Amino acid sequence: MSNPLAWASVPVALSLFVSLTACAQPQEPISIIKPAVITAPEKVELGKMLYFEPRLSMSGYISCNSCHNLSMGGVDALPTSIGHHWQEGPINSPTVLNADLMLAQFWDGRAKDLKEQAAGPIANPVEMGYTHELAIDTVASMPAYVARFEKVYGSSDVNIDRITDAIATFEKTLVTPNSTFDQYLLGDKNAISADVKAGYQLFKDKGCVSCHNGPAVGGTMYMKMGVIKPFHTNNPAEGRKAVTGRNSDKFVFKVPTLRNIELTYPYFHDGSVWTLEEAIHTMADIQLAQQFNEKETAQMVEFLKSLTGDQPQVTLPLLPPSNANTPRPVPFSSHNK
Amino acid sequence: MSNPLAWASVPVALSLFVSLTACAQPQEPISIIKPAVITAPEKVELGKMLYFEPRLSMSGYISCNSCHNLSMGGVDALPTSIGHHWQEGPINSPTVLNADLMLAQFWDGRAKDLKEQAAGPIANPVEMGYTHELAIDTVASMPAYVARFEKVYGSSDVNIDRITDAIATFEKTLVTPNSTFDQYLLGDKNAISADVKAGYQLFKDKGCVSCHNGPAVGGTMYMKMGVIKPFHTNNPAEGRKAVTGRNSDKFVFKVPTLRNIELTYPYFHDGSVWTLEEAIHTMADIQLAQQFNEKETAQMVEFLKSLTGDQPQVTLPLLPPSNANTPRPVPFSSHNK
Repeated sequence: MSNPLAWASVPVALSLFVSLTACAQPQEPISIIKPAVITAPEKVELGKMLYFEPRLSMSGYISCNSCHNLSMGGVDALPTSIGHHWQEGPINSPTVLNADLMLAQFWDGRAKDLKEQAAGPIANPVEMGYTHELAIDTVASMPAYVARFEKVYGSSDVNIDRITDAIATFEKTLVTPNSTFDQYLLGDKNAISADVKAGYQLFKDKGCVSCHNGPAVGGTMYMKMGVIKPFHTNNPAEGRKAVTGRNSDKFVFKVPTLRNIELTYPYFHDGSVWTLEEAIHTMADIQLAQQFNEKETAQMVEFLKSLTGDQPQVTLPLLPPSNANTPRPVPFSSHNK
Repeated sequence: MSNPLAWASVPVALSLFVSLTACAQPQEPISIIKPAVITAPEKVELGKMLYFEPRLSMSGYISCNSCHNLSMGGVDALPTSIGHHWQEGPINSPTVLNADLMLAQFWDGRAKDLKEQAAGPIANPVEMGYTHELAIDTVASMPAYVARFEKVYGSSDVNIDRITDAIATFEKTLVTPNSTFDQYLLGDKNAISADVKAGYQLFKDKGCVSCHNGPAVGGTMYMKMGVIKPFHTNNPAEGRKAVTGRNSDKFVFKVPTLRNIELTYPYFHDGSVWTLEEAIHTMADIQLAQQFNEKETAQMVEFLKSLTGDQPQVTLPLLPPSNANTPRPVPFSSHNK
């Protein structure tokens, strides 16, 4: 600090920094994914246990991770999910990765944040099929859980607010920084190939970026599925209309993230499309009245693959054993006992 | 080696070692669980990926870990398992922990080792519901898997022999050393309480140990369920009879391990008993014509809990994405496409 030579260079360095920053991100519509900053590690650990906890379901078999599998890009890689008693879910499971960067949760945005979202599937009869009351009784029955709640929240009270808060806190750590595209955004011009750069240029020039922008390359707005032409599907979901009641919100969905899109097939809210090529063609056609030739499509695919970031490294939690006070799972209705 | 003083002490040290060893394990019927020695880490990693691979099932939803959950003592903690299309499994899922120490696999011992076992559920219509051919096609479709097979096995050939060999190699690492009981066996007389010691004495005196012995405290032999009195159950499993065809093998099962028994409820091949207290009473009654009073039962429970060892620390594997060549999962029959 007292070295006059060092100080002399500060204005130069500062001006270089400003121009480099401006140069690296000249009004780019996509910003980087920042690494998770963990300020409450014990809450994260509790949340991780609950995320992997199948005893939050009626059957004792389904956990958050069942449909948002952290081995598979935070999804189940199925068109729609398998729920309690193998019921078929109504819509494609969105990825949990980078989900905190979305403006709201679920395809129709009916939950304002991850905490509110986490309460949904536990009590949804076609998902985990449990009740919040039984979920609380289950967690509260195990002294090892209660001790963690006491440590994290300052009292031994187990309630759905705390359960979902802990799960959401864990989920906020599930970000995927350091994709090659982010390395490029940070200034490493060689981090991505010429094809990726060309794909990114197309992504901007053709208008994809008008919906898919921000750090998650999506999740910043709602948009009608089928702006130019209708989207043909057997899926009955009506999107935002279910939340707002407005007819103008029919088929309006939250724009999904394109981060890790290589891993989160099949695509669209109905999970009907399995390849990036087909997804690109459909989007271009029904949303933008655009077409991509074979070379352009390949470049777009390369660009999309450059959005795959470092996946969370998760050590499987060890869950405490049930005891005589723990509600018993009811996997098969005929076996109620 | 050339230090004459060091050499002079070898006979003394050797004799001390021998007497300590003899002293620490004076003909104990239970021996310690040894930590895993990993000689082929890349094969273990490949096996771990396949162990967590839901695309080895028809639905794309069920993996080995679904019923042998490494967050929960290597079991699903259900009476019998949930299989493809929520079918009810025929028998309680045995723990994968320390399973390599068993004389054979499955309750009826129909698989001679873990490798042979691993092939079963993949193709069992009520478990993962797939076929070996489709499992091979699935794995072989993903370049990241093929590269690992090449590295581990010296050629890119993906076959069921290699798939199950890799899974078994991973499973062999799933041991639980360092229980307080093993610390006691290794000479730390204060590692277990007076109640645990009393429970262990009862375990030996009452005859439990005649079946539950060896490092896994079980798995060294087959025994009839109901030696003294019949075991009442609705479960139709006939045990070894299904393998040997002999009537004398009816209701003869592999003696299950008692390692980590605190975590592997519910108990018995039909999963009908949820507490260690009830399991102890039933076993004493129908196998040994014995009874335990309340204090003795509590001591037995304490002894059994002392058999819980260090659980494997498993980092969740990251699975490669499917591509256009990967067989698509068929979670719902009506959606065959």
